[in-house]
Amino acid sequence: MADLKWSPDEKKVAHRAFDAALVRERLAVRRHVEALLRATEEGIVIWEIRDYLNDAARDIDYKFDFRYSVLITVFARLVAEGALAMDELAGLAEDKLAMIRELADVWRRPLP
Amino acid sequence: MADLKWSPDEKKVAHRAFDAALVRERLAVRRHVEALLRATEEGIVIWEIRDYLNDAARDIDYKFDFRYSVLITVFARLVAEGALAMDELAGLAEDKLAMIRELADVWRRPLP
Repeated sequence: MADLKWSPDEKKVAHRAFDAALVRERLAVRRHVEALLRATEEGIVIWEIRDYLNDAARDIDYKFDFRYSVLITVFARLVAEGALAMDELAGLAEDKLAMIRELADVWRRPLP
Repeated sequence: MADLKWSPDEKKVAHRAFDAALVRERLAVRRHVEALLRATEEGIVIWEIRDYLNDAARDIDYKFDFRYSVLITVFARLVAEGALAMDELAGLAEDKLAMIRELADVWRRPLP
């Protein structure tokens, strides 16, 4: 998987899909912060927001890793979590799409 | 200053003033977060908020240090910064109030 070749067109598709998922993920984090603020008028909620954002930053850094050597697994996880639609990956070679689908299925499977 | 005696009544005044200033400080931080959110619809503002909250947490931890050995300087700084009114310290012994006033003046003085 690490030695797959990515054509210039595939790289464009990959970048666009990755960026779109990242934009959505950040917006979801923003919505959660807004909900925390709406839930109380207290100032002390800032520490809850801070902890939440520090956790979110770690998660996003880990999850959104744009290196071609790991991109198939990154996409598979995003697809499995509903953060990315297979449609958005249209334009990738069929072998890559098949791997992403297959890994997404594995990712969705409940732990034994 | 570190070996001042605090009577039970003075301790009550000190706690009340300290807590009131802390509540206001956290509310001010909250207002700033809300302003950052209002300034843009973008999700990426979450990282600016995160950095701001991490800085605010460090500042507040440093500034709000309730140890009687340092409380005079803590109050002086809060007074100098407008985070606490001298009125809120009514009930402390006059020597403490005088020290707080004097140190607050020093704190307000521009650096040479």
